[in-house]
Formats: sequence, structure tokens, C-alpha cells
Amino acid sequence: MNAHVTGLAARDTSVFADRTETRQLTRAEAYIQAHEFDRPTLVLDTEAVARQYVALAQGLGRAQVHYAVKANPAPEVLRRLVQLGSHFDAASRAEIEDCLAAGATADQISFGNTVKKVSDIAWAHRAGVTLFAADAEQELEKLAEHAPGAEVYIRIIVEATEADWPLSRKFGCSRDKALELIAMAKGLGLAPVGLSFHVGSQTRRASMWAPVLDQVAAIWHAARDAGHELTLLNIGGGFPAFYGESIEAPTLYAAEVMRLVHERFGDVPHVMAEPGRGLVAEAGAIAAEVLLVSRKSDSDLHRWVYLDIGKFSGLAETMDEAIRYQFLTARDHEPRGACILAGPSCDSADVLYEKRPVELPMGLRAGDRIVIRCCGAYTSTYASVGFNGFPPLDLVVI
Amino acid sequence: MNAHVTGLAARDTSVFADRTETRQLTRAEAYIQAHEFDRPTLVLDTEAVARQYVALAQGLGRAQVHYAVKANPAPEVLRRLVQLGSHFDAASRAEIEDCLAAGATADQISFGNTVKKVSDIAWAHRAGVTLFAADAEQELEKLAEHAPGAEVYIRIIVEATEADWPLSRKFGCSRDKALELIAMAKGLGLAPVGLSFHVGSQTRRASMWAPVLDQVAAIWHAARDAGHELTLLNIGGGFPAFYGESIEAPTLYAAEVMRLVHERFGDVPHVMAEPGRGLVAEAGAIAAEVLLVSRKSDSDLHRWVYLDIGKFSGLAETMDEAIRYQFLTARDHEPRGACILAGPSCDSADVLYEKRPVELPMGLRAGDRIVIRCCGAYTSTYASVGFNGFPPLDLVVI
Repeated sequence: MNAHVTGLAARDTSVFADRTETRQLTRAEAYIQAHEFDRPTLVLDTEAVARQYVALAQGLGRAQVHYAVKANPAPEVLRRLVQLGSHFDAASRAEIEDCLAAGATADQISFGNTVKKVSDIAWAHRAGVTLFAADAEQELEKLAEHAPGAEVYIRIIVEATEADWPLSRKFGCSRDKALELIAMAKGLGLAPVGLSFHVGSQTRRASMWAPVLDQVAAIWHAARDAGHELTLLNIGGGFPAFYGESIEAPTLYAAEVMRLVHERFGDVPHVMAEPGRGLVAEAGAIAAEVLLVSRKSDSDLHRWVYLDIGKFSGLAETMDEAIRYQFLTARDHEPRGACILAGPSCDSADVLYEKRPVELPMGLRAGDRIVIRCCGAYTSTYASVGFNGFPPLDLVVI
Repeated sequence: MNAHVTGLAARDTSVFADRTETRQLTRAEAYIQAHEFDRPTLVLDTEAVARQYVALAQGLGRAQVHYAVKANPAPEVLRRLVQLGSHFDAASRAEIEDCLAAGATADQISFGNTVKKVSDIAWAHRAGVTLFAADAEQELEKLAEHAPGAEVYIRIIVEATEADWPLSRKFGCSRDKALELIAMAKGLGLAPVGLSFHVGSQTRRASMWAPVLDQVAAIWHAARDAGHELTLLNIGGGFPAFYGESIEAPTLYAAEVMRLVHERFGDVPHVMAEPGRGLVAEAGAIAAEVLLVSRKSDSDLHRWVYLDIGKFSGLAETMDEAIRYQFLTARDHEPRGACILAGPSCDSADVLYEKRPVELPMGLRAGDRIVIRCCGAYTSTYASVGFNGFPPLDLVVI
């Protein structure tokens, strides 16, 4: 793995240059260089996932990792994480089934979606899952009826995070509601064991957790003061991946988050963390192809570059240009210029980066290979079943 | 088909009321009322597609319909349209294959994506497809090499449409570029037969076409003045479907568009129209379920209503709240209130309508059936392969 690997695919006539300077080619990227692909393909390196797991777990100390399966449910990833002792955060019955099939036991799986189908709750309960999330009265009623006696944690809504991609208000409830729900859960025969929150996706520095932890700690202590014995703190996800802007190393990052947690919560018996993106994003890269480079008129400042992958075939996280992927081409040593990047579908919304154009080689043209870096999270399962007739993202696990 | 059908599914205790007053329940909606579904399901009525085809074709007169396959590539839809004499606009090799499998001949299929894979161009050429779209030099070079002698139309970029969902600048080129491309195509041995454009998705009134047609006609006449003999005008799509705001009846709408075309272009030998949404949207309805109704705090003005279908499982067109679907519930006779509507996934971006909340019955609760109206276009193929473990939209054709 070297920034100037020579084993290039037949169509490439020059080497890939590493654009980030501080980072060499990953094993997945080197694999892409050495192979041909008929269609956009995610190459995923399970050993990179394992290394990242170990690094995060080391920093998290006695907190238990519950991998957020939705980030990438590939069986090879789940099996590797089971071997390493990871637990799992599932969003649906299908994700629980995936974890069980990979060798996890039911007590290692939490059902973390606050919005669950009744039939999925009942199925999970029968399967032996005992820990569920909730943020509303009706959800507690569903749990009490279909998973009687289950442990439940209440998700808190937090404000004003510094994450690259702050969450909407979709999940969680306010402080007062949380205290009401804890009492209600007890009345329904459930075991309200603690609280959860989410600091926001891609929270690049550990120090950004402090104000959010302050908010949750206030509710935690209010609940304890009200006589509720809480034993579980679920700190959720938010662990960052590298998308071009510097991030802290995983062990140091996780250790600092845990220091901030301990400072505010003391010795909580059970702490859960739910990295998804932070565990798998850097382990994957996508092999894609340039389909067309053009200008709308001869006076246009920017080129348009069209790829064979777009918003509806794997790169959904480019919505609102939130996640900014990095690219490698065989022409990275040539002069660069700004371009608008778009996908292959006939959908005019299938534009990846336009407000903030990307810098790509001026010589780029139809047929060129392009590698999209750090794509292991939220790509393969986001792909549509076949919009415009384009197949979903292919997956190769190495 | 009556606004107060009684054959309701077992779980419903009252009748659906027709909310739009001017519109009765469709056959697809009545089918949903009479059946149970395990998961979100699109019910599609091919006879409604056929009726709409006949209505549009009548208004379009001698213009040839090329159904935009991407709107809904269900084999039953394609076969019915083949029977009726429709031609097809395909976005990819897979869509061409679907049309051929449904009984269309290659000369009835245009390859309308301006961004094509070289291997798809070569395949389509071998399959007998002779008509292609282009808006850039590199695309003409690809066509000249892999589909030598093919007919090509140049897509024009149009400005400032009045469509509900104006297109981005992703497709098309400027006037000067168009004239250059026509000349270049000739030089490459291609047959540049005409121009295409797109007025914008969901152009609700025919009169909105006039300013766009003015722009295209100016280029058309400039090309003719420059000695290029153009014989094909592709007026694209934009034909509207009903999403709650009034639209003109299809035959009248299409006839008025053609009157505006004739006024500006005279007797063009070949006129193509590419309705997609306008042909299939109203023929489909989705059976969905309410998973949760909640408030984030007791003082919240709006409820949150969570469905078992969302942005990543079929309702992608809610992005930017562009397409506003209409809903039917068994409680539509009860008082209503505003709510934020969201999907079932753990993704915080999976919120359907928040900036402009929707009015739904105050009594709505977990387990209630909800019917999403006019969903036949851009739903089934937009669904992800399994984000969060949720399966793609199921499809029942009646």
C-alpha cells in the first residue's frame, strides 16, 4: 500500500497520486486499482473494519460498542464484529435477523429505532431481544403490550450540536417528556433503564460532545433526583470518518468522549456507544467511471462531470451536499479545475455537488476510472432497486 | 368506485371519506380498502394507465407518445402501452431490454439519456435502436464511434420555467452550443434530426409551456436558417398529475400544448412527447401504515406522524417537499390538525413534510391504515434495496 502503486488496471496509463498527502492508499483503493469492474462497485475491507473496531473499543474502555448495523449490514462485516465482541444496534427486524445470522446472540442486540412496527416488536421479543428505544407514549404502549417487561431507554432530543450533519428533530423528546415517559414505562410494567441521545452525524472533534453531554446530564440527574434509578447511558453515534477535513484519531477521540462522559455522569454501570459511519466508512471505496465531461456553453466557468453512480445508486448522502466525498483518478498529477459532479440518471435532482463544486483534473474524460474514497458507510443499502434501470451498487468484500 | 365504499379491510371501522370532493376513489384506492398488506405496497391499475394514454394521445394528435419508462417500468404497464401503440423513451440499457421484453420493437425506442455508458450505446446500436439524445461533444464522439450513422437530437437547456419542480441545469446545452453540436454531428457521420427540451416536471397548466417553446423555437429557426434541415421536435415530459392542486384535463392540456407548438414551429414532420408522471401517477396508490404519533414535548404545536414508508423506501420525490402527496385515512371525517410526516428509518433526513406540515385527523394513531394517492410514478424504482433493513416497495398490478 503505497501512494504510488504501479499495478494499475489496463485502461489506466498513469499512477494514482494520493491527494491527501497525509494518507496513503487504503487496501480497498489498491484493490480497485488492480481490478476491472463492469458497474459501480463498493470494495470493503473487513480487516480495516476490525482495526477501527479495536481502536475505538480501546478508547471507549468499559463502554460497550453496539455497531449501528444500518451503516453497512454486509454479513462479512457483522461476522467479523461478532468475533471481536461487538454488540449491535438494529433498526428493524431484518437487521436483527442479520445479526443473529452472523452469530450474535439476542442479548447482544438492542432494537434502537424509536419507531417500530408492532409485529417487529413482538417478533424481537420472541427472539429474545430485551432492550428497546422509545421517545413517545404510544411507543411505550406498543412495547408494554408486545414486549412485556422489556428494558427501555428514552431518547432525548438535543439542541445545537456542532456536527457536520446535525440531526433533525425527528428523534427524541424533551426533558419533561422524558421524565414523564420514565414514570409511564414503570406504570406499564416496563423497565426504564436509562437515556440515549445522538450528538449528530460526523462530529469531528471530541470536544464538540461537551455541550450535548451537558444537556443530557441535566436530564439524567433530574431523573435520579426524582427517584428513578438509571443504569444505562447510550451515547449513540457521531464518531467521524475522514472526508477530507481533519479528524482526531479514533482511540484518542473515543477516550476523550468517555472522559467527558465520566466528568458529567460519574460511574454509570452500563455505557453503550453506537458507531456506524465511524467504524466502516474508511474501510470502503467505490470504483466508478466518468461517463461524460461537458460544458453547457462555451462561456461556462465550470465543467459538468457525469459519473456512472449518483444520488439514487449509492451516493444518497450527497443530499444537501452534506457528506463531501474525496476522489482519486489516474490524472491527479495534472492541473485541476472546479466542476459540478452529477450522477447518470435522467433525474435532474441527481446532482452530487453543485453549490460547492469539486476540484478534478482538467484532462478528465469519458471512460476514466474514478475512485470515491471512504464510502463504506451508508452507500450500498441506500442504492435504489433500479431507478432508471441502473442496478444497485455492487459489493466486493476483501 | 364510490366516495363511500363499504367493503373495508377488517381493521378499519369507518369508511374512507373522499377528501378532494371533486374526485372519487380510484380503482387502486378501492382495491387497497378491500385488502390487507404486510408491508408498504403500490397498487397500480393498468386500465387507468390505458385510459390516460388514450386521453393524452387524443390531445397530442399526430405527435407520437414515447412513454418515459423511468416513471414506472412495471412489465404490465409496458405491455399495455405496447398494445396501445405507444413508443418508449429509455434511460439505460436495462430499460431498453424491458421495452423489448414487453413487445416493443427497437425502432419504437429512443435512448433519451444524454449521459450514456459507451457499452450501453454499443449494445443499443446492435439491438437496432437508431435514435439517441446528446447535449455535448464527448457524447457525440461516443455515438459516432459506437452507433455510427445514428439519428441524434440535441437537448436544449431552457430557463425560468413555471413548473412545480423546475429542472436543474443538469441536462441540455445553450443555443450556440446546440448549433455547434448539430454541425459537429454531421461531420462525425451522425444524422442530427432535431431538438429536444424539458419544460419542467409537473407543469400544471398548458399556457406555462409558451415561454419555453419560444426559447426552443428561436434555436430551431436559427438552425434552419443556418442550413440544417431539422425534422424532429421532442417536446419531452412535464405533463402533470393530480397532487391536490387543480390541473387541466389531459386531452385539453395536450391539445393546447400542441396548438402552442404548431404556432411556433409550423408543420414539423415528427413530434415526440415523453409523458411519464402524467401517464402513470394517478393510476397508482400506496397502502401504508401509521407506526407512531407523538409530540416531542407537551407544548409542541405539531404532532409527528411516522409511517412505515419514507424517503428511502419509495417516497424519494418528497425531497425538498417538491411533490406533495395526498392522503386518505379511515378517520377523514374527524377533526384535522397539522403534523410533520416522517418515514420509518433511523435516518434523521427521512422526514417527508416539515416546512409545510400536512393536515391529518387528530385521532390518527399507530396501526391505522393510510393511503397515499397518485403514487404510480417515481416510487417503486426509487425505493432503496433495503436501507435500515426495510424492504423495497411491494407492487400489486390490477
